Amino acid sequence: MKTDVQIAQEAKMLPIEEVAKKLGIERNELELYGDYKAKVSLDVFKRLENNPDGKLILVTAINPTPAGEGKTTTNIGLSMGLNKIGEKAITTLREPSLGPCFGVKGGAAGGGYAQVVPMEDINLHFTGDIHAITTAHNLLAALLDNHLHQGNKLNIDPRKIVWKRVLDMNDRALRNIVVGLGGKGNGVPREDGFDISVASEIMAILCLATSLEDLKERLGNMIVAYTYDDEPVRAKDLNATGALTLLLKDAIKPNLVQTVENTPAFIHGGPFANIAHGCNSVMATKMALKLADYVVTEAGFGADLGAEKFFNIKCRFAGLKPDCAVVVATVRALKNHGGVEKDKLNEENLEALEKGFRNLEKHIENVQKFGVPVVVAINRFPTDTEKELNFLFEKCKENGAEAVISEVWAKGGEGGKELANKVVETIENKPSEFKPLYDENDSIKEKLQKIVKEVYGGNGVVFTKKCEKQIKEIEKLGLDKMPICMAKTQYSLSDDPTLKGRPKDFKVTVREVRVSAGAKFLVALTGDIMTMPGLPKVPAANNMDISSDGEITGLF
Amino acid sequence: MKTDVQIAQEAKMLPIEEVAKKLGIERNELELYGDYKAKVSLDVFKRLENNPDGKLILVTAINPTPAGEGKTTTNIGLSMGLNKIGEKAITTLREPSLGPCFGVKGGAAGGGYAQVVPMEDINLHFTGDIHAITTAHNLLAALLDNHLHQGNKLNIDPRKIVWKRVLDMNDRALRNIVVGLGGKGNGVPREDGFDISVASEIMAILCLATSLEDLKERLGNMIVAYTYDDEPVRAKDLNATGALTLLLKDAIKPNLVQTVENTPAFIHGGPFANIAHGCNSVMATKMALKLADYVVTEAGFGADLGAEKFFNIKCRFAGLKPDCAVVVATVRALKNHGGVEKDKLNEENLEALEKGFRNLEKHIENVQKFGVPVVVAINRFPTDTEKELNFLFEKCKENGAEAVISEVWAKGGEGGKELANKVVETIENKPSEFKPLYDENDSIKEKLQKIVKEVYGGNGVVFTKKCEKQIKEIEKLGLDKMPICMAKTQYSLSDDPTLKGRPKDFKVTVREVRVSAGAKFLVALTGDIMTMPGLPKVPAANNMDISSDGEITGLF
Repeated sequence: MKTDVQIAQEAKMLPIEEVAKKLGIERNELELYGDYKAKVSLDVFKRLENNPDGKLILVTAINPTPAGEGKTTTNIGLSMGLNKIGEKAITTLREPSLGPCFGVKGGAAGGGYAQVVPMEDINLHFTGDIHAITTAHNLLAALLDNHLHQGNKLNIDPRKIVWKRVLDMNDRALRNIVVGLGGKGNGVPREDGFDISVASEIMAILCLATSLEDLKERLGNMIVAYTYDDEPVRAKDLNATGALTLLLKDAIKPNLVQTVENTPAFIHGGPFANIAHGCNSVMATKMALKLADYVVTEAGFGADLGAEKFFNIKCRFAGLKPDCAVVVATVRALKNHGGVEKDKLNEENLEALEKGFRNLEKHIENVQKFGVPVVVAINRFPTDTEKELNFLFEKCKENGAEAVISEVWAKGGEGGKELANKVVETIENKPSEFKPLYDENDSIKEKLQKIVKEVYGGNGVVFTKKCEKQIKEIEKLGLDKMPICMAKTQYSLSDDPTLKGRPKDFKVTVREVRVSAGAKFLVALTGDIMTMPGLPKVPAANNMDISSDGEITGLF
Repeated sequence: MKTDVQIAQEAKMLPIEEVAKKLGIERNELELYGDYKAKVSLDVFKRLENNPDGKLILVTAINPTPAGEGKTTTNIGLSMGLNKIGEKAITTLREPSLGPCFGVKGGAAGGGYAQVVPMEDINLHFTGDIHAITTAHNLLAALLDNHLHQGNKLNIDPRKIVWKRVLDMNDRALRNIVVGLGGKGNGVPREDGFDISVASEIMAILCLATSLEDLKERLGNMIVAYTYDDEPVRAKDLNATGALTLLLKDAIKPNLVQTVENTPAFIHGGPFANIAHGCNSVMATKMALKLADYVVTEAGFGADLGAEKFFNIKCRFAGLKPDCAVVVATVRALKNHGGVEKDKLNEENLEALEKGFRNLEKHIENVQKFGVPVVVAINRFPTDTEKELNFLFEKCKENGAEAVISEVWAKGGEGGKELANKVVETIENKPSEFKPLYDENDSIKEKLQKIVKEVYGGNGVVFTKKCEKQIKEIEKLGLDKMPICMAKTQYSLSDDPTLKGRPKDFKVTVREVRVSAGAKFLVALTGDIMTMPGLPKVPAANNMDISSDGEITGLF
């Protein structure tokens, strides 16, 4: 069997100029990055402002398990399937982060015959967007520490700095550090730490901005610290807004690449799905809607986290109206949710499947609560039995969502035709009645209660004392009228990663609420959310290589 | 008068494909980065291996003063002047670092009518080379700390780690830090620090590598730490070589841009000129020599630092034979060397000029010691008097080097024709007899004595006790047979920045010798050399901006 990198390197890519031309993008709207990657000018919006928008399809999933669901693969495969049945489709995806690539992942550009290419470039530096974010973030940190060092006119309390530094690296040794040591010439000593770049508020902002002006305004509003009098200090108070925007002038433009079958793909922006909202950029999705009849987009992790934030944050801000959602599941993953260990997933087990189905059931329900029609994509494995598959078809239908088999990993677009047909049929027959779940003007506690009760299926929310205090402070500053960005484990509908399937009778503890005043959301932290991953005992980096004739190994 | 960014934005750039075509670079050897930047494939070397090399001209300078010399501007202007007189010329330059751009510099792509464009891109992320270096450097740091955390099989002594982290930022608060705090799950606590990315050994290696294989071998050999038994631990011991090379697969390719007059320019690599060797990449210089009749290249700071390392390190490793050196000086800067304060430099002062000329005289002498013919370029200012200029012409001639006036800042290539003619005439009439100053197999102390006595004009070298010990250790490890990379103040021929002109009867104190086993040189540190700059009271970043229609301000 061929490895992912082999399949990717054997793909017959079209020059990206041709891919763009087919979409109706003009040559002068294209900035090439080599022959197979390009940034697309925002001028496209002006030229096509009277074009009708295409249909928007969200690909989401059950809660992830070690068995794997193949959400990105399905997203890519669905777009290829749509093209196979004669529709004009674009896939929009998040940019992979380098850190996890060197850790355990090795890459993140789909898999098998449903990949985006050139995968080695997409997985490495790509067009430099994440590097631009890293630089902008750390410039702001340097300006802040320089302000302290040069006399601290703004009266910043060094104990109340909320702007850390970032690197696109899995590096646990940088989680908790002390900076400014070495005496008077070397800054003001204080506690600090690094997050991974994709957890930066700047990444969230880049993905939510609707124009260069919007980007600039949001960047200026970011809160970096509080004064001794508890007043917020923003990026604009440090005169950083212009330089930050300048650093992101190219990063804000969507990146165009293609699938192994030459379907156009926008890969742009990649905010962390736990600490941020986990969707590709608004710019990419909106541009794709102007250029194609069907746009397939994704949100991180399961529908409890990814789809909820896609609907309540991204769609709300951008005025997007999703027409259909595809929930990806596998028989194996559902059996795992039903209690089967990883090494026994190859055995038929209808009892476990029935139990595990409750997880999928809840995700179907959730998407329907937002008024969006659902199709279930069963990502087929050779070990799935007819009985198991038939059981799933039945149960999905009972829940108002038709299920179809997807075999895009093994067969590419050909294996996604059935799914594509079902999605088109659903969009034609079931009009979307999309609306967000809560009013952003609801109180913080009301918003949190709604998410926990209606989306997670819990009994309610427990607030720590620290959190109660923070909520009061946020209300006092008038920063409470913003959507909530939940930071929760991806492995369970609850805040306890060990509770698989569809847990009941649980409460979710919110231990902290953080203000992302530039991104314009409030981050509610539950459990321990890691914002700087570590490397495993044997990092994927150890096996990577490039030969003198350019052959790459170790990316997958 | 127009600002630099205005002149740059008004330049009529040719599509970079056309610039490349004129040079004989084929379209399939080009990777575009937008319409005006490109990386050039290393395949060019194979195709043109039988082409004769062009002539190599080094642009160097007197010791820098606050008055400014305009070395980069002269380099760019000379290449434009050569084209004006009908010669096929290329300029090769270093890539600007972002950190200083946000600090005091605001940019580094020439000035006035002698600039490289697109200057805003060149000054910001360019083609991502420095970001790639930052990532590779920090991946190695993360792998190292992860190794400690996962059990430390290599027996690394955490107190003897010599591999710091890097960012392309002026950030003094990161100079001295403590990492790995926060308990058992968060790494091993130890002292650490950040350097600016261009001070990374990886930058030096990228600039010295002669092929992808050479790059890989050098990366693997980098020493990151020592064991409890004082054995060196190298990047290859951490299985990092392949991943580091992979991260640099595009960064190793030279970047092609153009001057405001469409002269081709390779801007590639930018090692710190104090801690490293301070020249653009060997790849860019060698490729340019295959493509043009005249290649103008530069080295950092004055000829004592930049030219000495260009000759003894870059030319030695790459087998380059420079045909001519241009030493850039200004009347104002020489008067400053002669003791005139910055605010009095506009007044005629022949006495100070005579005294200050001794600085230029020593640099002319030094270049001649390497067997390379010298032309002096006097970068003219409106306040220079005829008497002052005539004095300089006379004195240069007495010292075996003809001086010509350069007015490239105000007039572009037209203002560089006289210089171009003089350089061509010199190359035709005075054959170069280039040879490095010392044998790399000389002892460390012998090599240092030669540099200090012959190039700096000092009496000898003082070694600190620490340094004596280090030299013994290096000799014991058999790492002493490598060229020396001097780390010294750029402001004086001595190691004391206040000694201007041509100081005599001084000794240079070497306080530390560091091994760059991958770059294959030994860094000798004198005085306090800063490897992580700080931001000034009002950073240049504060004044940068981009408007909604893309107009950029604050870069200069």
